[in-house]
Amino acid sequence: MKKHNFSAGPSILAPEVFEKASRALLDFEGTGLSVAEISHRSAEFVRVIERARSLALEIAGLDDTYTALFLQGGASMQFLMVPYNLLERKAAYVDTGTWANKAHKEATLFGEAIVVASSKAEGYKYIPKEINVPTEVDYLHITTNNTIYGTEYHSIPDTKVPLVADMSSDIFSRPMDYSKFDLIYAGSQKNLGASGSTLVLIKKDILGKVSRKLPSMMDYQLHIKNDSMYNTPSTFAVYVNLLVLEWLQAQGGLKAMEVRNRAKADLLYAEIDRNPLLKGYAEKEDRSLMNVVFNLTDESTQVRLDSLCKEANISGVKGHRSVGGYRASIYNAMPIESVQVLVEVLKEFERTA
Amino acid sequence: MKKHNFSAGPSILAPEVFEKASRALLDFEGTGLSVAEISHRSAEFVRVIERARSLALEIAGLDDTYTALFLQGGASMQFLMVPYNLLERKAAYVDTGTWANKAHKEATLFGEAIVVASSKAEGYKYIPKEINVPTEVDYLHITTNNTIYGTEYHSIPDTKVPLVADMSSDIFSRPMDYSKFDLIYAGSQKNLGASGSTLVLIKKDILGKVSRKLPSMMDYQLHIKNDSMYNTPSTFAVYVNLLVLEWLQAQGGLKAMEVRNRAKADLLYAEIDRNPLLKGYAEKEDRSLMNVVFNLTDESTQVRLDSLCKEANISGVKGHRSVGGYRASIYNAMPIESVQVLVEVLKEFERTA
Repeated sequence: MKKHNFSAGPSILAPEVFEKASRALLDFEGTGLSVAEISHRSAEFVRVIERARSLALEIAGLDDTYTALFLQGGASMQFLMVPYNLLERKAAYVDTGTWANKAHKEATLFGEAIVVASSKAEGYKYIPKEINVPTEVDYLHITTNNTIYGTEYHSIPDTKVPLVADMSSDIFSRPMDYSKFDLIYAGSQKNLGASGSTLVLIKKDILGKVSRKLPSMMDYQLHIKNDSMYNTPSTFAVYVNLLVLEWLQAQGGLKAMEVRNRAKADLLYAEIDRNPLLKGYAEKEDRSLMNVVFNLTDESTQVRLDSLCKEANISGVKGHRSVGGYRASIYNAMPIESVQVLVEVLKEFERTA
Repeated sequence: MKKHNFSAGPSILAPEVFEKASRALLDFEGTGLSVAEISHRSAEFVRVIERARSLALEIAGLDDTYTALFLQGGASMQFLMVPYNLLERKAAYVDTGTWANKAHKEATLFGEAIVVASSKAEGYKYIPKEINVPTEVDYLHITTNNTIYGTEYHSIPDTKVPLVADMSSDIFSRPMDYSKFDLIYAGSQKNLGASGSTLVLIKKDILGKVSRKLPSMMDYQLHIKNDSMYNTPSTFAVYVNLLVLEWLQAQGGLKAMEVRNRAKADLLYAEIDRNPLLKGYAEKEDRSLMNVVFNLTDESTQVRLDSLCKEANISGVKGHRSVGGYRASIYNAMPIESVQVLVEVLKEFERTA
């Protein structure tokens, strides 16, 4: 009985990723040892992390002025590491939701951090288009996809200051000029793997410009100097990162992901727009390809839709408490067949009203 | 062909732990979903982390004035979080090796941090017994087991100030009065599970006494308030923590671990002391039950011993570069049979000299 897992994260990965990881837990590449019991300094694991780092850069199309790190602590740790490493005088943040807001709040502990645009007053239903960024800020921070509200940047702001992005929920979902960014971070548990590992892509020359002393674990330069192994990494999670990146490449890379993701999103949004019992949450032009958020026109029908979803083996579609309704997360690994099942359920929901 | 994995960490876990984890990656408790794709907010995962937290306290024999957290970043992140949360005026550190030294260095960024005893001048071969701790310090920090040098505290210092310990490499290896400590932290990758998760046991009333503002991810109180789920935890690693804690209890708990660990250590140290080609590194009275460090009386014989180890399927015994020689890590999950194989190899090494 196949489950259709629409969870917002940790979330679905390709079946072959779970199968390979499951086998490697018993015997990693014929070593007779579990991937979780080998030293992070062993030749076997060094190959894993080095391959994952170079594949991440390759997929992003970034040259060697950038580097890739796999760190611990999720995006929330990056909310703190970014200002620790980059905020000297002033930073600018765009407030497009709960996570963007949290990132801004952490920055205020390290210096002046201003909000240059916000869609908060309208329930974060859209992405602000007009952003005036003072030229003297150290960086501009954006959140490219907003998991809770289902909004996403469809064009990257042009800016003269270094651009930093939290891409936790849409990284590698489509081709993009990743070199427009100076620092990109993404928790693994959506498009990159299991939770417990965070990918950080950094243009190296933006570092080393703040005057504060950095604790070792907060210092990107120290992590870079140590090839992302300043201390023991989350080895199993990094191994899953590698499996996911290899899977993504085997599928045809970012172009193939975009085709796949647009087909799924188009199918689902079309049904939401057609079905009189449903209404989409975000403004159409800013709709996310990853998180499809919708409400019921009549909330009293929720029990019935929940029950139809359950019968169809659909899980993880409950909306975040701050917007209610439903959220179907359709990350890279989600097959279109599962979206078709959900669409069928939504049609059935209307038919049996 | 069974491998004997003496790696210092990540390191051996019980075969049944790897088997259960491998199965759960394909289907977690009949849910039809991988343990790595379920939401950390799902009832299933909340049960995992809550059970792991309460089992950790139960095994340590700590009452509800303490709490248990599973955080990310390893012991190295705790080197920073401890002073962030506890260092207001002055802290005292005992320097018993590389990791103790790093812990002290991080603390100096947050205030005055003094070294009250050190065995550095003698190559960290012993644990300092005379420690004069000024009564006005905020805490005393010790490292109960020193992985690189193979030394371990066999009695806990009596102190009138809060006691903080890095127990990464010997936690839960033996019964101990854990309530003598106010804060204990331990990276998982030795006695607790896979890398990527760090257990922190905290006496709650020592918190909230510093005047600095804490970034969210650094704040123990915020993690406690959020039941160790302030942000997405390393879910798979926490699941492995639970499997290891359940395994430990099923074996008979800390008393059984001590019997097991003493038998293994006695066997190996007896051979080291007997064999004229070997010499132990640490002072006898301070020898570690977890990491058995020894050198060769004639270094030119190393190639031959390496080759005998390889033939016997022994891996991970290379000593740390700072002391050379060999290090056999014999954590809780190491069966005595593997230690017997190593002892046989050492005897063969002498016979064929």
